[in-house]
Amino acid sequence: MKELVRKVYEETGIPVTEPGIARVIAALLSEGEFWAAMPYAKAPFNVLAETVRQLHERGYVYFVGSKVILTEEGDQWLAKNNIHPLIISTCKACEGKGIELTRFLDLLSAFKLTVVNRPPSIVDFDQGYVTEETTVARVVMMAQNGDIHGKDLLVLGDDDLLSLAAGLSGLPNRVVVLEIDERIVDFINEAARKNGLPVTAYRQDLREPLPDEFLGAFDTFLTDPPETPEALELFISRGIAGLKGPGCAGYFGVTNVESSKAKWRKFQKRLVSNLKVVITDMVTNFNIYENWNYLLDTIRNDIEPLRTEPQVRWYRSTQYRIETLEETVVSNEPATGVEIYVDNEALVYTRKGEE
Amino acid sequence: MKELVRKVYEETGIPVTEPGIARVIAALLSEGEFWAAMPYAKAPFNVLAETVRQLHERGYVYFVGSKVILTEEGDQWLAKNNIHPLIISTCKACEGKGIELTRFLDLLSAFKLTVVNRPPSIVDFDQGYVTEETTVARVVMMAQNGDIHGKDLLVLGDDDLLSLAAGLSGLPNRVVVLEIDERIVDFINEAARKNGLPVTAYRQDLREPLPDEFLGAFDTFLTDPPETPEALELFISRGIAGLKGPGCAGYFGVTNVESSKAKWRKFQKRLVSNLKVVITDMVTNFNIYENWNYLLDTIRNDIEPLRTEPQVRWYRSTQYRIETLEETVVSNEPATGVEIYVDNEALVYTRKGEE
Repeated sequence: MKELVRKVYEETGIPVTEPGIARVIAALLSEGEFWAAMPYAKAPFNVLAETVRQLHERGYVYFVGSKVILTEEGDQWLAKNNIHPLIISTCKACEGKGIELTRFLDLLSAFKLTVVNRPPSIVDFDQGYVTEETTVARVVMMAQNGDIHGKDLLVLGDDDLLSLAAGLSGLPNRVVVLEIDERIVDFINEAARKNGLPVTAYRQDLREPLPDEFLGAFDTFLTDPPETPEALELFISRGIAGLKGPGCAGYFGVTNVESSKAKWRKFQKRLVSNLKVVITDMVTNFNIYENWNYLLDTIRNDIEPLRTEPQVRWYRSTQYRIETLEETVVSNEPATGVEIYVDNEALVYTRKGEE
Repeated sequence: MKELVRKVYEETGIPVTEPGIARVIAALLSEGEFWAAMPYAKAPFNVLAETVRQLHERGYVYFVGSKVILTEEGDQWLAKNNIHPLIISTCKACEGKGIELTRFLDLLSAFKLTVVNRPPSIVDFDQGYVTEETTVARVVMMAQNGDIHGKDLLVLGDDDLLSLAAGLSGLPNRVVVLEIDERIVDFINEAARKNGLPVTAYRQDLREPLPDEFLGAFDTFLTDPPETPEALELFISRGIAGLKGPGCAGYFGVTNVESSKAKWRKFQKRLVSNLKVVITDMVTNFNIYENWNYLLDTIRNDIEPLRTEPQVRWYRSTQYRIETLEETVVSNEPATGVEIYVDNEALVYTRKGEE
């Protein structure tokens, strides 16, 4: 086991631990399939991929498409290493979100109709959108926390089109979207006009400071930051700059798919020590993404499961809710030099020597 | 509104914000009752109590037992201040826990039988135990995360008797309980003996260092720390000292009932900056406590709802899961001078001038 863990670290450069890799294997055992294991492995995609490759090289598993099947040697090795399948008990009613959409089913239907011709995801801006159920669930989570009814909402990046779901709910006073992709800005403004919603989108690169008119103007923000510590801090700090003051709320997702536990701690340190906000909620696997068409072209493809289109919605993230406090740090500086999209834990990062 | 917020702060000494108090009132509006509002108010008990007292003094609400009912003036004041009821949408199937007990119903029955003569809670050690469903849900959460099957589990303080539920599940290799209350130590050891469980309890004051034999010996710990930043860091750090190394997991609950958002940030800073662990999960209202017999004797009683026995299980907490990393700080120093039970956000803290 120690040898396998060392190899995974050497090949990926991502911090891993023995219990962490044991959990990855336990998730593969309980799900029996590469993509379905991702939400429970709680490790970066490249760690899962490399672990599976290492298991395969040692003759412990074989593949049928994306299925990962144990050999007899594999079975013995697991017993020796005291690794057992996870016992998955996610609530079927809410998919683990902890909230139900019962009171919002009309909103869900209206939202689905409104976004039927949405712009497709493109790789340029690290896009990929959550299911429509997830978007409505985000509205529900805000409604349960008193963060949307009668409130002013700021959305930083919105390929999920949450602004439209929020507008259609009739709850917020006003929704402003700042978004870099012109196609999405236009789509939101057009849909808002057609439906008479209090929603306006503007084109904005979030590396630039927030325009003055949006400083201190909102009760709640929502964003989905790219997953480098610098980008996360930058996006959250733009959100905070938009808020009216202490006691306001921010929502955003963070994945295990592209961020190790060590990187998560860096994120959390920036939140609670640098920005001085409090994390009030973290809902595991709350955000469920639709699969996107460019996936297999952009990831490593050295084992069969990675050449097989996923049949499940495997890309998920934990929804964080934060609150601002008296001591929260407010700033609005330009950050034009920050590399915001890719580090070596990113999905699209390939091992040295490939390509 | 500003005036009311200032009064709540003056009377309680607990940091509050305008949006925070608005959320407290929104929870009262959606639940219509003092105790039922607690799990959704996300504020300390004394903040909720003082807010209700201030609303009552201004003629905005009146009481029928623990019911808090809006007057006409109150209704107008809310409209003026843009405060609306929370839209509570907690999943009914899992009570918001995100996991289901379906595969563990036999365990739940066995656990209930085993603990039927458990020692009653006493005030001396800040006791109060969670429902048996909650205890089993903790086992399920560990099982889903690969933290219990075949593992060695350390329980620091166990009036919940989780050690017995864990033992009865047949999943862990070994369970050790360190507990200050001799009654509980004896009860656990007796039940473990009768049922042939791999569970042993020892009497231990956690302000003392862990005995050498328990250092670096466990895969997972669980505790329910008293809610001062010092006590939380102390208990978690004892748990960490018991773990085998990086990648191990710890579980514990933190309430809003006795800890403001500002105190939560202090907790989180100690976790991610001092101890250098990562928070992987935070499940809101996961832990649901049974009501206990000494409640009304120990809290403020200046408004009618506080003289009325709660009919709902109102005391809840967020379940945190943390993981250790390469960089996690391990220590096992004595901490005999630390005041571990009470600060001014505690349930039993009474306003100056009372009593």
